[in-house]
Formats: sequence, C-alpha cells, structure tokens
Amino acid sequence: MATISSYPFTILPESVDFTLRASISSIISYMLNVAGTDAHRKGFGVEVLQGHSFTWVLSRLAVEINTQPRQYDDIEVDTWVNDFNRLSSTRNFRMRLGDTVIAAGVSQWCMLNMETRQAVDMTLLKDVYERAMVAEPSPIAAPARLRDITPTASISRPVVYSDIDFNRHVNTLRYIDLIFDTLPIELIENNRGMRLDINFIAEALYGETLTIGSTSEGNVWQFEISSNGDKKLCRAKIEFKE
Amino acid sequence: MATISSYPFTILPESVDFTLRASISSIISYMLNVAGTDAHRKGFGVEVLQGHSFTWVLSRLAVEINTQPRQYDDIEVDTWVNDFNRLSSTRNFRMRLGDTVIAAGVSQWCMLNMETRQAVDMTLLKDVYERAMVAEPSPIAAPARLRDITPTASISRPVVYSDIDFNRHVNTLRYIDLIFDTLPIELIENNRGMRLDINFIAEALYGETLTIGSTSEGNVWQFEISSNGDKKLCRAKIEFKE
Repeated sequence: MATISSYPFTILPESVDFTLRASISSIISYMLNVAGTDAHRKGFGVEVLQGHSFTWVLSRLAVEINTQPRQYDDIEVDTWVNDFNRLSSTRNFRMRLGDTVIAAGVSQWCMLNMETRQAVDMTLLKDVYERAMVAEPSPIAAPARLRDITPTASISRPVVYSDIDFNRHVNTLRYIDLIFDTLPIELIENNRGMRLDINFIAEALYGETLTIGSTSEGNVWQFEISSNGDKKLCRAKIEFKE
Repeated sequence: MATISSYPFTILPESVDFTLRASISSIISYMLNVAGTDAHRKGFGVEVLQGHSFTWVLSRLAVEINTQPRQYDDIEVDTWVNDFNRLSSTRNFRMRLGDTVIAAGVSQWCMLNMETRQAVDMTLLKDVYERAMVAEPSPIAAPARLRDITPTASISRPVVYSDIDFNRHVNTLRYIDLIFDTLPIELIENNRGMRLDINFIAEALYGETLTIGSTSEGNVWQFEISSNGDKKLCRAKIEFKE
C-alpha cells in the first residue's frame, strides 16, 4: 500500500485562456502530466513499458471543475491509484488551491502493445501495482459510458504533426481542445462549474481526417469525434452547472 | 546591471513529439515561458503592465536548434535582456543540456496599449529596465526582417478558442504549430539542426479565418500567415541544415 502523492504547480501564463484562468485542457494537462510523472516514479511509466513495446492509453476520463485557477496561482495536484484489473487501472486526481478542492478527476487506463495495437493483460505488473495502490475512494463518480449521438452540427479537419504524441496518435488534450473549440465561447467565459465525461474508443493517426459532431440540450452538450467518416474515435459529454 | 538568470526544466511527456524529442514549439514554449517568469520576477511582467492596460507583444524571434532534448532530459534555459529602446526590447535565450548549448534564441518585444492597440514608448520602464540589463551579446544573429513571398501552397481554417491567449489574440506558439504542421513530417523526423526566423505583423482575433501560405526552395521554407484574405499576420523562414 502507498499514500497519496502531491505535486505542486504554479499556473503559468501559457496555461491560461483569454479569461486569465487556466483553460479546461490545461487543467486536464496538469492531471495527465502528474499521472505520467507518478507512474514514472513508481516504476511503471511509459519509458519502462516502452522496453516491452507497451504503452499507456487513456480509455475514459471524468473531470469536475468547480473553479479554474488563475494565472500564478500555486496549486497542488494529488494523485493515487485505487483499482486495477486485467484490462483497466483507475487513477484519481484532486486539484487544490490551499485547502479548497477546485477540481477532481477519475481516469481509466489500459495498456497497449504498440506492435499489435492490442490491449495487454495488466496482471503482468501486479507486484509493482499492488505496492502503488492507495485505499482512498475516487473523489467523483467514475467516467460514464457514453452512447452514440445524432449530431446536429459538425466540422472536419486533417490530423497534423502538432496533434500527435509519442504514441503517434492524436493526443488526448487535442480532443479536449477540439471539443471546447466547438462550444459557444460565452459558455467557457461564464463557466461556474462543469463536469466532462469522455470515452476514447479508437486512435486517430497522422493524415486521417477528423470530424467533430455535436448536439446540445439545455446545459448538456454531447460530442462524437470520428475519423475518415466512419471510425468512431471518441465520445464526450459536458454538463454545465446552472 | 544584472546577471544572466537560469531556469531548470525537465522535458515532460506532454512536450515531446512522436520522435520522443521536445517539439520545436515546446522548445520555443520553454523560452517564452522563461521570458514571462523572468519579466515577472524583475518587476515588468504582464501583471504589472496590465495595471496600465499595457501588455508585452513579441514582434520578432529567431531560434537556432541544434539538438532537440529528449523526454525526461534535465535542461536549463538561460535568459537575459541586453538591449532596449523606445519601441523594442531584446531578450536572449540559451538552452543547455549539461554544458552543451543545444538551442539559442533572440526575441524582440514591444509594449502594446490594450485599449488603443498602439505601441507604447518603453522609456516609461527605463529605471526598471536599466537594472535588468546584462552586458552579454546575443547568442545568435538577430531575427531577420522577412519580405513578402509568393506562396505555392496554402490552407485555411478559423481562429478558435484554444488558439487565443490572455491578449485575446492568436498565441505565438500556435503560429509555430501552424507553420510546422505545413512541413513534410519527414523533415521534422530527420531534423539535425535548423534556424527559424519569424516576424509578427498584426494580431488575429477570435472568429477570423487564417490562411497559411508556403513555398520552398532546397532546404529553405518560407511562410506567410494572413487573416480574412488580406491582413498580413506573420512571416516566417526555416532553414534546415544539410
């Protein structure tokens, strides 16, 4: 058993949007950044996995953001793993400004064989993992399983160099950007709390064409990103607080 | 007179491209990040200027990159201001991996009145600035003044939420991404040294449509980004080492 790890950050100018608050994708970036660093320190980071041609892939993520921290705020991100099975590992996040929790997240990861592009049985890492587990519940409800939507609007664009990461597929944060870029900018400007659920289904590769479809009803927005017309890549749902 | 300031960084997974080396835009991001932090520490950061409705705007930048650092490399970025006049301030960068200089940059900044969108006379900051100046020459040639090109290829797309920064205009790093996204990906994959010169002419705002025009001859690539057809925003030139 391990204890919760905390990582301090200062919100840098490059992380804030036009409202001078950390953008949603940069808040998620701080969380995923901490996931990478914490896995690295605990002996199951990507650089260890790459020796086996394996890598981590984020399959589902839920994030609730009550307050976006402001430029130069000093925050802490807590992270801990509290569950794993053959196919999925659960890592949690809590972002704090002093003693106040301003955002929280739950992420589910699988391990991918980069050569076969198939999921790897995670019991391979059982010993390392059991030492890293923390007996602390997740801070928010687990990521929802999202269903197909019927988009009422859509835009398309190719996958380019700056979209792809070390896995040679479109980076998670780029999907978050694509989704938030589709929203009316006033919703982001006036955000007073929201929850995002996102499911990653397949990977998009360099040169493919992405289509971002969306639909909304009241304060709930739903998204579906596909590639080359019919390959479903990702589904997402955003609910804004009234 | 002051001395050169150095800031340490570890190259995080979020900063590397598919080659597992820091992308060109993240190398420039480390430099600009340090520019912001160093200005902040020395009393002329954006948050001081914002009290006067002023902000910093990057007008020209030259960067030479010999080696892109790899994931988890520990680097240091040195920065110093060595020149300023009424309209422009020169800030220099040196990125080191141990004792080896792997990249260097020279940036020229002007101060903008956010209400009138006009340049501000920087002698306003003369006392603060003179204390911050360092008697050390720039590490590479100053940014070139670039001329009009005749593009042989072009692509267009709208300015979206994730493109804009606290100035409410398209962020510098996004132009770098747009430019490198236009290059054949093999040039980036096989990069063994390059110099980028970039001139920023006007700002692009949310909702405008960007057009990225390019042309190449041998190992030299030239770019021109414009908005809504005729507003010139930025010119750039990249020369790859043979």
